[in-house]
Amino acid sequence: MANSKYEYVKSFEQPDILLQNVWIVVRIDGRSFHKFTTKHDYAKPNDDRGLSLMNRAALEVCKEFPDIVIAFGESDEYSFVLKKSCNLFERRSSKISSSIVSYFTSQFVYRWKEYFGEHELKYPPTFDSRCVLYPTDENIKDYLSWRQADTHINNLYNTCYWALVLKAGKTPIEAENELRGTFSDGKNEMLFSRFNINYNNLPAEYRKGSVIFKKPVQETNKETGLTKSKKRLVIEHVDIISEKFWKEYPDILASK
Amino acid sequence: MANSKYEYVKSFEQPDILLQNVWIVVRIDGRSFHKFTTKHDYAKPNDDRGLSLMNRAALEVCKEFPDIVIAFGESDEYSFVLKKSCNLFERRSSKISSSIVSYFTSQFVYRWKEYFGEHELKYPPTFDSRCVLYPTDENIKDYLSWRQADTHINNLYNTCYWALVLKAGKTPIEAENELRGTFSDGKNEMLFSRFNINYNNLPAEYRKGSVIFKKPVQETNKETGLTKSKKRLVIEHVDIISEKFWKEYPDILASK
Amino acid sequence: MANSKYEYVKSFEQPDILLQNVWIVVRIDGRSFHKFTTKHDYAKPNDDRGLSLMNRAALEVCKEFPDIVIAFGESDEYSFVLKKSCNLFERRSSKISSSIVSYFTSQFVYRWKEYFGEHELKYPPTFDSRCVLYPTDENIKDYLSWRQADTHINNLYNTCYWALVLKAGKTPIEAENELRGTFSDGKNEMLFSRFNINYNNLPAEYRKGSVIFKKPVQETNKETGLTKSKKRLVIEHVDIISEKFWKEYPDILASK
Amino acid sequence: MANSKYEYVKSFEQPDILLQNVWIVVRIDGRSFHKFTTKHDYAKPNDDRGLSLMNRAALEVCKEFPDIVIAFGESDEYSFVLKKSCNLFERRSSKISSSIVSYFTSQFVYRWKEYFGEHELKYPPTFDSRCVLYPTDENIKDYLSWRQADTHINNLYNTCYWALVLKAGKTPIEAENELRGTFSDGKNEMLFSRFNINYNNLPAEYRKGSVIFKKPVQETNKETGLTKSKKRLVIEHVDIISEKFWKEYPDILASK
Repeated sequence: MANSKYEYVKSFEQPDILLQNVWIVVRIDGRSFHKFTTKHDYAKPNDDRGLSLMNRAALEVCKEFPDIVIAFGESDEYSFVLKKSCNLFERRSSKISSSIVSYFTSQFVYRWKEYFGEHELKYPPTFDSRCVLYPTDENIKDYLSWRQADTHINNLYNTCYWALVLKAGKTPIEAENELRGTFSDGKNEMLFSRFNINYNNLPAEYRKGSVIFKKPVQETNKETGLTKSKKRLVIEHVDIISEKFWKEYPDILASK
Repeated sequence: MANSKYEYVKSFEQPDILLQNVWIVVRIDGRSFHKFTTKHDYAKPNDDRGLSLMNRAALEVCKEFPDIVIAFGESDEYSFVLKKSCNLFERRSSKISSSIVSYFTSQFVYRWKEYFGEHELKYPPTFDSRCVLYPTDENIKDYLSWRQADTHINNLYNTCYWALVLKAGKTPIEAENELRGTFSDGKNEMLFSRFNINYNNLPAEYRKGSVIFKKPVQETNKETGLTKSKKRLVIEHVDIISEKFWKEYPDILASK
Repeated sequence: MANSKYEYVKSFEQPDILLQNVWIVVRIDGRSFHKFTTKHDYAKPNDDRGLSLMNRAALEVCKEFPDIVIAFGESDEYSFVLKKSCNLFERRSSKISSSIVSYFTSQFVYRWKEYFGEHELKYPPTFDSRCVLYPTDENIKDYLSWRQADTHINNLYNTCYWALVLKAGKTPIEAENELRGTFSDGKNEMLFSRFNINYNNLPAEYRKGSVIFKKPVQETNKETGLTKSKKRLVIEHVDIISEKFWKEYPDILASK
Repeated sequence: MANSKYEYVKSFEQPDILLQNVWIVVRIDGRSFHKFTTKHDYAKPNDDRGLSLMNRAALEVCKEFPDIVIAFGESDEYSFVLKKSCNLFERRSSKISSSIVSYFTSQFVYRWKEYFGEHELKYPPTFDSRCVLYPTDENIKDYLSWRQADTHINNLYNTCYWALVLKAGKTPIEAENELRGTFSDGKNEMLFSRFNINYNNLPAEYRKGSVIFKKPVQETNKETGLTKSKKRLVIEHVDIISEKFWKEYPDILASK
């Protein structure tokens, strides 16, 4: 049963090497998560257990793939930014994209119980993923700004929608109709005047999403008393649209 | 916080539509499974629990994505063949490849306990995936033959290797040295004369891998007594290299 | 001045190997040929010198690249079909596509005088090209049918349009308006009743375009008197939409 | 003869949009130019008519495609650099690459007589082309340095080789053997001591190739006497490896 006769089929595999010296974003996205969150009784508009589990799975991905310099998550999606010089799997697009989404999914299911306790996982979820390339620092910052602005827009809408449905007793269609054509100002005003919600006082995680990066920290050795500068992976809910963040942590985009 | 300023970054996403009218293979493969199987005390050379879990996860993938007409698995890899006319996710390569590997991984972790019981999952596994295209029926059959011939070659080697290590007390290096340069005949002879193993009597699953396909079955309605022809997803360990299989189930490759 | 310091830039070149075992079409197309034909006083709706030059350039391409099994041309475009097993330039898409369009253009300019005589070339023309893949014989025949049906549609329209402009003294806009919304039947009828043109009597080259292929011919050796079967590249203006052509020349698609 | 039945074949065309915001290099290269230059009695190691024709064809390409910010040529190859924001043909790779190589070839044949006079073109030449992407200014300068260093290395070798063959009466094989393993210093020394050639006094065009770019010039209006700053396409044989050139003409890479 010689294999050589069939080995020609290997020549049908096509190379998918990503261009050198550009930022690689791997964005993963939940499939049919509207149904998934409903079936699993996620709190609306935001479920702290669900967000924490997403963040934890993403944190584990960042530990496993050290070429990731920053990650940003909101709702059922997460974007992982790999450094320009990344040579993981020789920059093969499928390998990178599939390994990250597989490990993320694996962590999500593996750690479900840690975050949802007795509230058990009824069926296994699916995420998809893709690679997108960004040549300049400006482009990659704009990409992340795009996602964070999206977080804000979605969260403001969802906060209004669910207030109308859960607190004002509207039907989904009534809620949608009421929100159609409104602007940011109008939505903020609605939340404040009708539901006594000051949008800006809501948790930063809901409004700004989650940022994972390696933060420089001072650590003091207990025995020697000496202080050393180290980097620790942290999850913060900070503004990455303004330049302040990038000035505070210039190492992120300087990664070789 | 208008999003429009940043939306230009969407134009950096590049289309990855697969060529029309060709077979699509999505092959998934365990990452670092040598370590994974060791840490989880898999029996060597084959662990029935592990193989059954792979098969179960693959079966669930076939249920979820009905465009899959046949799947073949061995060891820590599985190949899913999607029909030529498949229009899943508009044939976007990343979407197809990532959704399948994510759902497979998800099932693998979700159902671990069903197959390994109290032997718990110590850390979550990773699989990678890729799409490969095959234009003709001959090509796709040769692809599957390539994988099944590979199953045989690997299993014969592994059966000898582990007999030498576990039964003859050889070190891994001694076992490797003894097997270097041997052919099929020599390995069969070694198994028989030294270990009293008739290779051909080993379970077909070890020797031929696992084939998942929709098998035509006759089902009798208990109430009416009427018999109807249906198709059921089955897992069999049959020869797909010879033409016999394809003649018996002509519908598999005839799928529109 | 060592070059090694800069050689890393080679790693930015990305492979573009075409999938194995599928038909490759290279279609070339004149750029701004409306202007080119006007500046060079092409007869309207068809210029015999221009069509003959296109055919000649295409014929020379077929001689230079023997992997081409059939070519089809109309107006300022030509499609070259390379056999499925073609390994020209290791199937690199750019190499194949660019070499063919370059050689075609080169022939077009080089032989201009042969076809246009004293009517000189005022500026050099440009053609673009692309590769498209077709997996099955049915697909490639349908591709060629698509182009030949297009030839017919365009030629019928153009014949009417130019009859209205050149013979009935209509302005371009009047001619367009008159033809808007008409069907084949109406156009045939207009040609016959108003201009005494029986469309089906027009030269086949205008109505069906040009087909280049290797035709089996019997050749008799003048000295020995022996007859031998050979293949000669020919240009014919035949129907390739119906099956008749393909049955008469089965070798074309049987090319290994 | 409705075309709609066949139009599905259009869906087999695959998009080939180049990544946004990166430098695009289109490099064209003569096919079988060893034979071409021999058949056309090119002077060795450099033929001024041949080089001038290459430069002229390239200059016309730069005029036709204003997105080209710099071009570099040597021997039978030319590299055209298109600005990062280039949206020519919506950045479709095949369109860009094929149109440039076609127009270059067209100009080469069209203008042959201007440079070679009565020495006529015996057969039409072919060039191939490809697109390569470079993300940063450093990358694109390194690409151009790579080509210019290559020019130097090739020209030094060829100058020695042809001196040995044409002046010292060596056979090609003797000349190759004599040059094998020699370094720059040795070759310079050989040219000086044996052939009285001071390499650095050879024309810059041979040693450094040709650079085409838009040079700022001061032009005085004859009537008004007013001086205005304009940009003119020029061909110069200057060093583009050192930073001096880029500092002198900062606009080249600043092109939006």
